Amino acid sequence: MSKNAQLLIRAGFIHKEMAGVYDYLPLGLRVLNNICNIIREEMGAIGGQEVSLSHLQNPEIWKTTDRWDDIKVDNWFKTKLKNDTELGLGFTHEEPLTALLREHVQSYRDLPIYPYQITSKFRNEMRAKSGIMRGREFLMKDMYSFTTNQEELDNFHEKCAGAYMRIFDRFGIGERTYRTFASGGVFSKYSDEFQTISESGEDSIFVSRKRRIAVNKEVCSDEVLTDLGLSRSELEEKKAIEVGNIFKLGTRFSEPLGFLYTDENGAKKPVIMGSYGIGPSRLMGTIAEVLSDEKGLVWPESVAPYKIHLVEISAKEGKGVQTHAKKLYAHLVQEGIEVLMDDRELPAGQKFADADLIGIPYRVVVSEKTMASGKLELKNRATGEVRRLSETELYQYLNI
Amino acid sequence: MSKNAQLLIRAGFIHKEMAGVYDYLPLGLRVLNNICNIIREEMGAIGGQEVSLSHLQNPEIWKTTDRWDDIKVDNWFKTKLKNDTELGLGFTHEEPLTALLREHVQSYRDLPIYPYQITSKFRNEMRAKSGIMRGREFLMKDMYSFTTNQEELDNFHEKCAGAYMRIFDRFGIGERTYRTFASGGVFSKYSDEFQTISESGEDSIFVSRKRRIAVNKEVCSDEVLTDLGLSRSELEEKKAIEVGNIFKLGTRFSEPLGFLYTDENGAKKPVIMGSYGIGPSRLMGTIAEVLSDEKGLVWPESVAPYKIHLVEISAKEGKGVQTHAKKLYAHLVQEGIEVLMDDRELPAGQKFADADLIGIPYRVVVSEKTMASGKLELKNRATGEVRRLSETELYQYLNI
Repeated sequence: MSKNAQLLIRAGFIHKEMAGVYDYLPLGLRVLNNICNIIREEMGAIGGQEVSLSHLQNPEIWKTTDRWDDIKVDNWFKTKLKNDTELGLGFTHEEPLTALLREHVQSYRDLPIYPYQITSKFRNEMRAKSGIMRGREFLMKDMYSFTTNQEELDNFHEKCAGAYMRIFDRFGIGERTYRTFASGGVFSKYSDEFQTISESGEDSIFVSRKRRIAVNKEVCSDEVLTDLGLSRSELEEKKAIEVGNIFKLGTRFSEPLGFLYTDENGAKKPVIMGSYGIGPSRLMGTIAEVLSDEKGLVWPESVAPYKIHLVEISAKEGKGVQTHAKKLYAHLVQEGIEVLMDDRELPAGQKFADADLIGIPYRVVVSEKTMASGKLELKNRATGEVRRLSETELYQYLNI
Repeated sequence: MSKNAQLLIRAGFIHKEMAGVYDYLPLGLRVLNNICNIIREEMGAIGGQEVSLSHLQNPEIWKTTDRWDDIKVDNWFKTKLKNDTELGLGFTHEEPLTALLREHVQSYRDLPIYPYQITSKFRNEMRAKSGIMRGREFLMKDMYSFTTNQEELDNFHEKCAGAYMRIFDRFGIGERTYRTFASGGVFSKYSDEFQTISESGEDSIFVSRKRRIAVNKEVCSDEVLTDLGLSRSELEEKKAIEVGNIFKLGTRFSEPLGFLYTDENGAKKPVIMGSYGIGPSRLMGTIAEVLSDEKGLVWPESVAPYKIHLVEISAKEGKGVQTHAKKLYAHLVQEGIEVLMDDRELPAGQKFADADLIGIPYRVVVSEKTMASGKLELKNRATGEVRRLSETELYQYLNI
């Protein structure tokens, strides 16, 4: 089993329903929601408007763009209504969103718009063995741009690339994530991927550390290197996880679906489109893969399920410690700090091992010893650094 | 088409993908999220812990409880993996949640627990003609209780009934929503429904206004009335929408799935379960049905997509009005007020009609007239009351 799934299952973040299909337990859902909310902030900042499209897909619009047939798209999940009408389960949403916007956009005045959603996608993968990094059902943030001309598309493409790098920075994986030149697929000659270097990645990329860019091995020809002004000697081959991608779609969908707008001169023209994907569940898996250590998960504060893991170590009759820990917990929560309390009747060693496994940024220990010394123990999960602080010093440290 | 779908589509809240399948546009998603967040608060307050289970369902656990066969459950959507393994799309989640918790709960010390989720459900309805009140794909809050004994189940059942009534009160439909005695289905003799009186409801109930309870017509026998101490003379027959239901499940699922815990004496016993459902998308449809008027939607502040609809009415060259409206908008947003700005170049009458249709609680008009008088116009959508206020008075009115 992949490292991310092993760690996340052992630590109680997720549950495996079947290959490529996972449930999120309270700890895991908190991480996933934190990831989604950071993505929402950055999508809002570049003009994104959140929508939510259905999972069930009407075949008619997909036939119009020739993406209904299983020969053309090989990872559909399909199902049927009672009257035997075939339906699909959304693996992406270009078609329904384009068809929807046809009814709401008429004029150049209504553009540009940048709708996005964060919803489950379904892909009938032949194999699914990378934990939550490649799901048959997974969470996807898919944004689409609808503009009147190529320049607006190019500008927004760059703007979104910037937002993506800010997102990866906020998740603590910016340093090891490269904007990667990749194949454009059916829509355009090239596309941009965002690849996080990791031994567990399914992709191979050639990285230029100096230039902070990379090229996907699939397209790394002499011609492409010349285009990018890169020489083979400056490139290192690395395994990487694709954590995002952005495509220029042009009129690939707006033409067949008849999504036209009226320009300043009254002429009808097809809308120019782009698509911008990030997988929050795959990102959670990626963070688990690349930031963990031999003791377990190590969450950056931005996405951690809680900020503090409060571990109370008391003897059977240790009412004083328990009361003190409860008071401390109540005060921290009241001050808006997210705290996970471990008041289980278990040996200290097991509780510490669990705290390391779960990977909350700060562990605070309350015990007979800390009470006697008047100093709490604060441990930083990422660095291992331990501080002994009075309660007042702890509050100062936390800015509360 | 149902009134809720008509209004919500015309006002730009939702889009119909096909019968019983809807997309949520920015305005609609804001309402839906507000509804979900109020439900989250109330579920959290009674001890709920949020999780998120997969849509794709493994047949094996459903066979164990005899709910896989289409003859036993007639509204499954089913699909297939590449290797022809059949999968289902979750229409409820008793089975996977029970199977999941088997692995996390061993002792009476781990109970009670109250997990819940807010996720899409799929039901292959023969007909779907009530807009977002009966979807083939819809949002559901489903909570499940896992306790060690009947008394805890009974207590939590009452606690959750209380939380449900608080939720309906917060949505502005508490007065017309009745806790309703109903059939227990396969799990138990009786259950509790929550029914909102509305001509567009699919259910018939007998209401006692005095006692603030109701009985579903399906179970309204003399025996039941005697049980409840109700006489036919005090009951009125009403059409109603089922907005919530709570069931005592007992060991219906824990026994076949082998979800046992160890009690204080070391004995293994099946966990006692209950289920507690509310449909956020159906609730959104219900609010649209029962609180709208002939001009359009009327959202209560608690779920409204915005608090203020700021309508700017300016002549073509009216820069002064536009600048003033923009400043007012910026100030309100900065103070944390949610404002929808209408700065479209359209006739005033059309903008007012749209504001009425969309149904945001307060409409504020900025025009040459209001600027000349130094008084903004504030209109309450629900009551129609109009006030003329200076900017300072408006801020006081809004407590900012």
